Amino acid sequence: MNNLKSKVNFKRLKDTIDKSAEIGNIPVNGLKRLALSDEDKLMRDIFQVWMEEAGLEVRIDDFGNMYGKRPGKTDKPPVLVGSHLDTQPSGGRFDGILGVLTALEVVRTLNDNDIETMRPIEIVNFTNEEGARFEPPMMASGGLAGVFDREFIYSRKDRDGKKFGDELKRIGYQGKSENRIQDIYAFLELHIEQGPVLENENISIGAVEGIQGTNWLEITVTGESDHAGPTPMNLRKDALTAASQMIGIIEERASGKGVMATVGRLSLSPNVTNCIPGQVVFSLDIRHFDDYLRKEVLNEITEAIQRIADDREITVRIEDLWDSKTTIFNPKIVNLIEERAKELGYNVKKMPSGAGHDSKHMNELAPTAMIFVPSANGKSHDVSELTLDEDIENGANVLYEVVYQLANNEGDLV
Amino acid sequence: MNNLKSKVNFKRLKDTIDKSAEIGNIPVNGLKRLALSDEDKLMRDIFQVWMEEAGLEVRIDDFGNMYGKRPGKTDKPPVLVGSHLDTQPSGGRFDGILGVLTALEVVRTLNDNDIETMRPIEIVNFTNEEGARFEPPMMASGGLAGVFDREFIYSRKDRDGKKFGDELKRIGYQGKSENRIQDIYAFLELHIEQGPVLENENISIGAVEGIQGTNWLEITVTGESDHAGPTPMNLRKDALTAASQMIGIIEERASGKGVMATVGRLSLSPNVTNCIPGQVVFSLDIRHFDDYLRKEVLNEITEAIQRIADDREITVRIEDLWDSKTTIFNPKIVNLIEERAKELGYNVKKMPSGAGHDSKHMNELAPTAMIFVPSANGKSHDVSELTLDEDIENGANVLYEVVYQLANNEGDLV
Repeated sequence: MNNLKSKVNFKRLKDTIDKSAEIGNIPVNGLKRLALSDEDKLMRDIFQVWMEEAGLEVRIDDFGNMYGKRPGKTDKPPVLVGSHLDTQPSGGRFDGILGVLTALEVVRTLNDNDIETMRPIEIVNFTNEEGARFEPPMMASGGLAGVFDREFIYSRKDRDGKKFGDELKRIGYQGKSENRIQDIYAFLELHIEQGPVLENENISIGAVEGIQGTNWLEITVTGESDHAGPTPMNLRKDALTAASQMIGIIEERASGKGVMATVGRLSLSPNVTNCIPGQVVFSLDIRHFDDYLRKEVLNEITEAIQRIADDREITVRIEDLWDSKTTIFNPKIVNLIEERAKELGYNVKKMPSGAGHDSKHMNELAPTAMIFVPSANGKSHDVSELTLDEDIENGANVLYEVVYQLANNEGDLV
Repeated sequence: MNNLKSKVNFKRLKDTIDKSAEIGNIPVNGLKRLALSDEDKLMRDIFQVWMEEAGLEVRIDDFGNMYGKRPGKTDKPPVLVGSHLDTQPSGGRFDGILGVLTALEVVRTLNDNDIETMRPIEIVNFTNEEGARFEPPMMASGGLAGVFDREFIYSRKDRDGKKFGDELKRIGYQGKSENRIQDIYAFLELHIEQGPVLENENISIGAVEGIQGTNWLEITVTGESDHAGPTPMNLRKDALTAASQMIGIIEERASGKGVMATVGRLSLSPNVTNCIPGQVVFSLDIRHFDDYLRKEVLNEITEAIQRIADDREITVRIEDLWDSKTTIFNPKIVNLIEERAKELGYNVKKMPSGAGHDSKHMNELAPTAMIFVPSANGKSHDVSELTLDEDIENGANVLYEVVYQLANNEGDLV
């Protein structure tokens, strides 16, 4: 393998991130750039100019995904690199944006150094990764992978009843289906970690091995609502004390096995100071990279929940809302990320992704892997989101190296 | 003491209860008769006719409290008997209504049997006991006792901004301040238990010794909100798992000491399935008849809550919202209720009231006690509220006996 002597131009990359951070800016240093909004349109228009200025052939597909192609010496399947430029309603300036703009910086640096690659390189901005305006998230990458069909995607509505298809046309980004990317040699996505692991272990680069499998459940605990004053403790059927005991068991079991389990949503009725809660409904989110272990802990937890309900002589209903298997990325690319990061002198760690990304769907279409950079305090989807300059620069350099290597790679990755 | 040979006319009492249950009827067998509403006015108009038909001298005071006086052989301070005819928005047909209509039945039965008493007997319907439309509850009895002044009461607004004073005038029940009852020999209130104790122990009559003291607190637990996927369990500052542990400790400590503690209200943010809760706010209601024990358990609980927060390295704020001392009723009247019930052959139990009643304020003005009748399944403030016929009849007969005895009593009660 040829090693590159050149590195990315961090000042230029930082300027580009700062310009993006002006489009949809909200206090303090946050971004509101919902998919297919006027802000998204403006960002897309500017991104298109940047791609053209970098000599890329721009095209838009029927989901609004934007591609910029840098030809290679051959017409072999390209290396695709990118992420998404949309944000949450009260999001930060990094998230997926960093993945798109570092991809652009990789191309610019190759241009600066007059480096040709054997394969074409394409950069991409996927439409509506966040799912904050139109559900579900990772919509347009899911469209490419055939997980959602176009009719479904176009019919999704925002809270004002506006349809995805109409809004896509309105902002002028409804391209042609023949523009969808087809044969892909490899897909690479740089993204912020959205968790505290890298910062906590003082590591600059995550070589992401895949995306954790996830279960979503809804648990309904039904006891009896009574007046708080006259009902002795031993005659109560309090749904909230039962739910609290369940939440305690969930935390204990999950921690013990290194599985992540979260009760993020909870409501109770009647929800009045002097009434014993008669019903509590709560969500349960369970994640782990090992599908078998996840399932095992899930079973342990649901059994324990049922036992608590039985002991307290109340009823519980456990509903499965979602069961998503673990996504395993391409080990050759993961190893390449790790190797290149080490060679550049950065601390690197192989790790799973806790959150979902466009890479989940792209992994169905092509050998895929992700590069994580640290999130200060583990924060994301919030205006306090922060990735330090040095980490951005290191991440961009690893991306540059890995894209270069893959774009000159002859052999099969699978 | 002379014993009465006569008993109440249960069929007439039941008819009267059924007529009341038609005014503001909601499905199934419930009542919505908010204070100073059109339904309340209609009920008052009919109650006034019933009082006049029973030969009572009717008067209304400036809080809208309705009195009906049956003269005695002397002008000594009267025995006052009654409760309230208003309900919760989705209330039952018994609650305080039973206290007013059994008082009316007592007078009717005395009339039937041509029984004169030494003291006058007055029956009363207190305005706005529920506080469901105008807060606070027990408003007009509180006005009599000087807990709230008239300016405060008249200025209370409902959710549509309508003032108590204006609504009182609108329905034609703004009487004169000189009509307020003054010298009272004793006050008696029959009421449903609103708890499961009597039913559970198969007892017909509660001789109520007082009203439990109550603390209301608001507890704010602040951790850190993070994405549920990428944040390992050991790096979390989950406000909900902390709050759940606190709720567990509250239940355990209170149960151990026989004190009642209830977390009835709880909210969390951001309240999203895949976000670790950053903040939880919950209410705490603590009640016991022994003020010292209540305070002791309260201190234990707040210390334990603080310890949990410290262990988890999160913050907690504990706010005192309300601290109400125990009300002790007049032991001579409580004993009289117990004795009369036994003599009538009913099971009777001395017990505290968990909920507040007009008797709480009346206890400041006169020797006071209450008679409880069972609530099926402990339910109240709900359309499912039910007191069985036999229990109503027994309660009315005890009330009849006790009123008669007190109305012929010469001696001081204090």
